[in-house]
Amino acid sequence: MKIAVCQSNPIIGDLKGNKGKILAGYKLAEKDKADLIVFPELFLCGYPPLDLVEKKEFRDAVRKAAEEIAAVTGEVGLIFGSITETFEDNIGTNVYNSAILCFDGKIQFVQHKTLIPNYDVFDEVRYFESAKEISVFEFKGEKLGISICEDIWNDVDYWKHLRYSVDPIKKLFDGGATVLINISASPYAYGKRLERLAMLSKLTSDDKLPLVYACCVGAQTELIFDGASMCFDKTGKLCLIGKKFDEDYFVFDTDKEYEPVKEIEGSLAEEVTEALVLGLKDYARKTGFKKALIGLSGGIDSAIVAYLAVKAFGSENVHVVMMPSQYSSDGSISDSEKLIANLGISSDTISIQEVVDKTLELLKDAFHGKGEDVTEENLQSRVRGLYLMAMSNKHGYLLCTTGNKSEIATGYATLYGDMCGALAVIGDVYKTQIYQLANHINKNKEIIPHEIIKKAPSAELRPNQTDQDSLPPYDLLDTILKMYLEEQKEFDEISKKIGNESIVKKVLRLVDLNEFKRKQTAPVLRVSTKAFGYGRRFPIVQGWRK
Amino acid sequence: MKIAVCQSNPIIGDLKGNKGKILAGYKLAEKDKADLIVFPELFLCGYPPLDLVEKKEFRDAVRKAAEEIAAVTGEVGLIFGSITETFEDNIGTNVYNSAILCFDGKIQFVQHKTLIPNYDVFDEVRYFESAKEISVFEFKGEKLGISICEDIWNDVDYWKHLRYSVDPIKKLFDGGATVLINISASPYAYGKRLERLAMLSKLTSDDKLPLVYACCVGAQTELIFDGASMCFDKTGKLCLIGKKFDEDYFVFDTDKEYEPVKEIEGSLAEEVTEALVLGLKDYARKTGFKKALIGLSGGIDSAIVAYLAVKAFGSENVHVVMMPSQYSSDGSISDSEKLIANLGISSDTISIQEVVDKTLELLKDAFHGKGEDVTEENLQSRVRGLYLMAMSNKHGYLLCTTGNKSEIATGYATLYGDMCGALAVIGDVYKTQIYQLANHINKNKEIIPHEIIKKAPSAELRPNQTDQDSLPPYDLLDTILKMYLEEQKEFDEISKKIGNESIVKKVLRLVDLNEFKRKQTAPVLRVSTKAFGYGRRFPIVQGWRK
Repeated sequence: MKIAVCQSNPIIGDLKGNKGKILAGYKLAEKDKADLIVFPELFLCGYPPLDLVEKKEFRDAVRKAAEEIAAVTGEVGLIFGSITETFEDNIGTNVYNSAILCFDGKIQFVQHKTLIPNYDVFDEVRYFESAKEISVFEFKGEKLGISICEDIWNDVDYWKHLRYSVDPIKKLFDGGATVLINISASPYAYGKRLERLAMLSKLTSDDKLPLVYACCVGAQTELIFDGASMCFDKTGKLCLIGKKFDEDYFVFDTDKEYEPVKEIEGSLAEEVTEALVLGLKDYARKTGFKKALIGLSGGIDSAIVAYLAVKAFGSENVHVVMMPSQYSSDGSISDSEKLIANLGISSDTISIQEVVDKTLELLKDAFHGKGEDVTEENLQSRVRGLYLMAMSNKHGYLLCTTGNKSEIATGYATLYGDMCGALAVIGDVYKTQIYQLANHINKNKEIIPHEIIKKAPSAELRPNQTDQDSLPPYDLLDTILKMYLEEQKEFDEISKKIGNESIVKKVLRLVDLNEFKRKQTAPVLRVSTKAFGYGRRFPIVQGWRK
Repeated sequence: MKIAVCQSNPIIGDLKGNKGKILAGYKLAEKDKADLIVFPELFLCGYPPLDLVEKKEFRDAVRKAAEEIAAVTGEVGLIFGSITETFEDNIGTNVYNSAILCFDGKIQFVQHKTLIPNYDVFDEVRYFESAKEISVFEFKGEKLGISICEDIWNDVDYWKHLRYSVDPIKKLFDGGATVLINISASPYAYGKRLERLAMLSKLTSDDKLPLVYACCVGAQTELIFDGASMCFDKTGKLCLIGKKFDEDYFVFDTDKEYEPVKEIEGSLAEEVTEALVLGLKDYARKTGFKKALIGLSGGIDSAIVAYLAVKAFGSENVHVVMMPSQYSSDGSISDSEKLIANLGISSDTISIQEVVDKTLELLKDAFHGKGEDVTEENLQSRVRGLYLMAMSNKHGYLLCTTGNKSEIATGYATLYGDMCGALAVIGDVYKTQIYQLANHINKNKEIIPHEIIKKAPSAELRPNQTDQDSLPPYDLLDTILKMYLEEQKEFDEISKKIGNESIVKKVLRLVDLNEFKRKQTAPVLRVSTKAFGYGRRFPIVQGWRK
């Protein structure tokens, strides 16, 4: 059987556009004389549609679009993900996350999703019921076993711990499936692709069935989908893989011999760089921004964000602003100027000092003679935010924030200051990983000036300040943060590992105390298994202490 | 049977404090010779604990605290809500939202929650499994039918549409229950208390069983719990009701005759005022803030927030700042001064004009000669934010934002400007409701000056500006917003009702476009069935248009 995979980039809610992509892909499959073409999970409405699903007019429009698509199909089978609805009883939502199979002008078969994920960034139980039936569908001499994303992630033989008591793939296997098809929308995290490969390869070799695993690509606000759709033969060999971080269309022939695919996943720096460029590019494209703006401090974080923006927007569409104060080091401007030259981007330099001084003068009485403290530091950061937002408003720039994950975790960022912006581009990248990105970017030639990479990180908000005045060294900090944030470990276990209770206590307390700042952060592009934002939900007001 | 109800106010994660409240309540019940004392849902860990539940060390600490509580119990039965965990298999989380019954020094019975809500602000499927068994427990001659919150909300006879296929209360009834106990944590929304009363009264009269419905009280970031625990006799009569918006302890005797309770719910203005004061007070108390700060514009929104802050903090702990510009009307200061005198609060007046002018002068070149637009308006709002945050940092004030629901919905607020602050106190109150609050507050004497109530709403960011230059009249706007936000209606239905497609289109578009601002808003105190924040999840980047 010749199965085309169309790994496209939908816009959530844009039914007209997404329908157009399905019809365009279908024409290619007809031209290629494929038997079947497959689109990813919920492709017609985009994933995740979130509370749009709760709107009846939206669901009606999705149903109408699905019927219109089915109406133009011919011999070639078409599978795409969509919302469907049954009106059978008065219990539950009656709404399903479904795979629709159509040909010969109508919808011929619908398989609902059985396993409804509801952890991390997934909230699907909020919207969808679980399938009551799982069955194969005979098509052109094969028995298609169709499943949706999570359905394939509960293999009893692969996992030590199961999330669900049902295994839909076993039911399809028992039902006599000869070809497995899984339509998916699985958000990117570094390392996940290799895990997918291992799991799917074992499953297909155990079941002795070929598998088409069709993934979507593109970014939807904070979630990035990396494409890399996979086709396995019945020995568990990966025969084809879709492009990473880009749209793709290709045809898999279940009867053909393939050379095994070798290149699965690059280094963290390589992969994360590509992921973030796509995240930034799609946010801008899907919201209509053409140009980006970054406040350049002379430090490594804003340098990396400027580089990513150049990759996403083109150098002619990236503008940076340098905003020195009395505490700025000499290097902050000269190093930035090197970077600006290397990237070929435009810039302004506007001092904040006068506005800071004028503001402090006007607030003097209201401060009641209290001495300098963090107020004056935050004020500098906020005047920079004031400038950047004014520039963004005036010229229609997308303002990128430059905080990394280590900073956002510990609250080492100023609310309404350097946290101003539409998208936290590197908010899921630890400081130690930022250096990896810099080295990767400089692999062939120096783009990020080495002066920027070498200097001690500093917010430059008071004389001779460095980050390490307030925080532990970044390698130690990031080790603690990773255990706390991504591995759900707590004080006892982390202290035991680190061997320093007071540092661990301090870091954990900083993370907890700064939940209020993260509530107000820009969306964070997700590249790890646990990013700040939608998939991480901690109370702002809470008293848990170990 | 004499059942004490302890309607307390927990702090999420503060196991020591919450345990202390349970033990203190237990002593009262012993003194009163009650048979049983009941605490609300998840009281030991606080509700909602969110992702704390995913931490093993946290769950272990909760279990240890529960065992310590049980160890000190005597004859009097004690029921409290807690997290429990079974270690029976390798499927699912094995974590439950449970009611623990203990006496004679140990845990005697545990009933897990059966119906796990996962809509609006509820994410419980993320953490909890559904009970596999539902059974009654014999205690002192009665058969206790214990359920947890949502369990009681799926009565086949009451609802036209059911969320779940199981009815746990019917199982308890069939199991021979003679007394029903429901421990609850149900967030406040205006109108919900009467709905509870109607549903529970019907249920108890149908089943001919008395019911103790124990609710928690207090605010947890954006969620407010209103207390008002209810005790019904077996005829469905409401015999006792707990205090509204305050802690309470009282004893219900199932064998005693009671006069029916008449006062259930006050007017929207009365109730919402109380709810918001509790929300603000608890946020401050639980995070350690003693003083509040508000930017006073001369308009009705900031006036109402100042009044609420006085109720929550005391007038001696509320400070306001007036920040006039060249566009401020004469009244903006004089009206504010009247309010300040009425409330007896302290104030500063600091003009923003010089800082605005200096900033515009410095940015002039970077603006490339482009004319005035919304940039200059936003800048004024942001300089005010700059001042307020500096004051907050310097003096440790809790900064309250003053945006109402109509503004937040339409994006008629400046990000990093008037949106600066820790808590959006009136962010779930429509502008038309703000006037109701003002009239309620002025019921006995003028507190909010009538000049403030009478003037046309204006942001005063350009000459002679009023809100109605950009927005439809507030009564029409709020009608549209309520249908769109709370009733999940869409363009077709709303237009039909309103009879003006272009206005509806404009408003809906504004709501959709401003999702990015709401992502970065302070937590909004929830007083309606659909507030901005945790319970409302729309994609920021999306293309759905009707």
